[in-house]
Amino acid sequence: MKILVTGAAGYLGRHVLAQLRLRGLPVHALSSRPHVHEEGVSWLQADLLASGQAERLIEQVCPDVLIHLAWYAKHGSFWTARENFAWSDASARLLESFHAVGGRRAVLAGTCAEYDWSSGYCIEDVTPMAPSTLYGKCKDATRQYIEGYAATRGISYAWARIFFPYGPGEPSARLLPSVLSAMRDGRAVKCSHGRQFRDFLHVQDVASALVHLALSTHAYGNFNISSGRPVQLSSLIEMCASHFRDQVPIEFGAIAAPVGEPQMLVGSPDKLQATGWRPTLSLEDGIADYANSYIQEGK
Amino acid sequence: MKILVTGAAGYLGRHVLAQLRLRGLPVHALSSRPHVHEEGVSWLQADLLASGQAERLIEQVCPDVLIHLAWYAKHGSFWTARENFAWSDASARLLESFHAVGGRRAVLAGTCAEYDWSSGYCIEDVTPMAPSTLYGKCKDATRQYIEGYAATRGISYAWARIFFPYGPGEPSARLLPSVLSAMRDGRAVKCSHGRQFRDFLHVQDVASALVHLALSTHAYGNFNISSGRPVQLSSLIEMCASHFRDQVPIEFGAIAAPVGEPQMLVGSPDKLQATGWRPTLSLEDGIADYANSYIQEGK
Repeated sequence: MKILVTGAAGYLGRHVLAQLRLRGLPVHALSSRPHVHEEGVSWLQADLLASGQAERLIEQVCPDVLIHLAWYAKHGSFWTARENFAWSDASARLLESFHAVGGRRAVLAGTCAEYDWSSGYCIEDVTPMAPSTLYGKCKDATRQYIEGYAATRGISYAWARIFFPYGPGEPSARLLPSVLSAMRDGRAVKCSHGRQFRDFLHVQDVASALVHLALSTHAYGNFNISSGRPVQLSSLIEMCASHFRDQVPIEFGAIAAPVGEPQMLVGSPDKLQATGWRPTLSLEDGIADYANSYIQEGK
Repeated sequence: MKILVTGAAGYLGRHVLAQLRLRGLPVHALSSRPHVHEEGVSWLQADLLASGQAERLIEQVCPDVLIHLAWYAKHGSFWTARENFAWSDASARLLESFHAVGGRRAVLAGTCAEYDWSSGYCIEDVTPMAPSTLYGKCKDATRQYIEGYAATRGISYAWARIFFPYGPGEPSARLLPSVLSAMRDGRAVKCSHGRQFRDFLHVQDVASALVHLALSTHAYGNFNISSGRPVQLSSLIEMCASHFRDQVPIEFGAIAAPVGEPQMLVGSPDKLQATGWRPTLSLEDGIADYANSYIQEGK
């Protein structure tokens, strides 16, 4: 079985490679930058946005299983970037090429930003799709295209709507790395009001869910990759603080919350869990590990 | 003043060129195919989807005014085609290039398919955007990108949400050409149930609205290009039939209506009309002219 992972050098991609390695599954790992070969990982370099490169890559590898994670991911700007359009196009072309060489199973990364954010608790195929951001709109449109394409051709696929991954390797500008590094360095933590409820899942569990879906050929359509547990940001930050000996001030309200962000954004994990997947880390254990990695770094 | 029209050889494009000619305005007309020069029209050939061609074209022409109509338009398949993604990307890049060379005013073609079709009567900036089709989603996402891009850079633009144009030059597979050619040729007219209400505007008036918006630099944001008059398809078809001496059977219900199509889809013309534009042809006069053109052809 040949597995191809796109976006393999990214935050999620690295953890997906690790989960495949844990299961003894060799992988073809695609990145836009060069990488040296590692045990069980054949790195490939291609720019999926460049004309013809996706097609050539797929013809070269002839993968049986595709885990497509690559997308424009620059922190902050990905919400509104024009690059979202090109990634919709590239993702659709990638799946078409994959199908043309006889690919058997595809998992593609979607997002909780596809849902109507006024719904609060998001359930696949029940909660309306009404993305408010350009990123969410482009992911939603890509999903709609792939849904139609897969249905008419009998392609086995899962569309993985990822909520809030956290854990090692997270880009430094995101919430938890900035909170944890401030606590480690003895700087005040500046936050928004902190009353928002979000759905956090450790990135190892996100990656294990993606690999589980890739190997579960009968799991069809949309799947939330979520914990189902609403956690208020203020509680999460206080949970982080509890691991540090020296307490820093936590300034709730110091930063304005983004306009239009939802008060509650949580995904039902029932459909995913019905396929047999379970998370391995509680939020408490995951945050303890994560905080300790910062404390060790600071020593 | 240099005016550039994209999609200039298409159904709307041809009528926009005619409206510009009526006003004595010379135009640079872009098409993906070659055309011979006409009076007042400088034809240019470029593929807006090919890397760098849009940028080179814009640098060559340096237009002051852009009327962007080009999009994937193959009858039937445009609703679901993957090409919608590439046209979103190309449209965004075109506007960026236009801005980079000092372009002053842009009008871009949107669609009534951006609206939530359960709303019935669509009012700009009031009716929710909840496109159900891939075409509508990609147009809506393009509008959102352009709205943000234009706002941060102070670009004067109008986004024209076109409802149902009809009249000379219409692609033959669309409703009225297929109805009128059947009536001309003495064939039975096969229709869906015909109870849907739609908003028809003669293509000359659609084109005059687009040109009006291009020249109205203070008209900002989203504008319906619509009549505001709900007309039931059965009435429209009977209005067509009234012009033919020999009556053919009209078989309502012979064709299934598309799944998910709205019962009522009408656009408020108030915002457009507040800018001073008025239609010139009533539906009765427009249909009479249109039917007569088929009757003359049949002689």
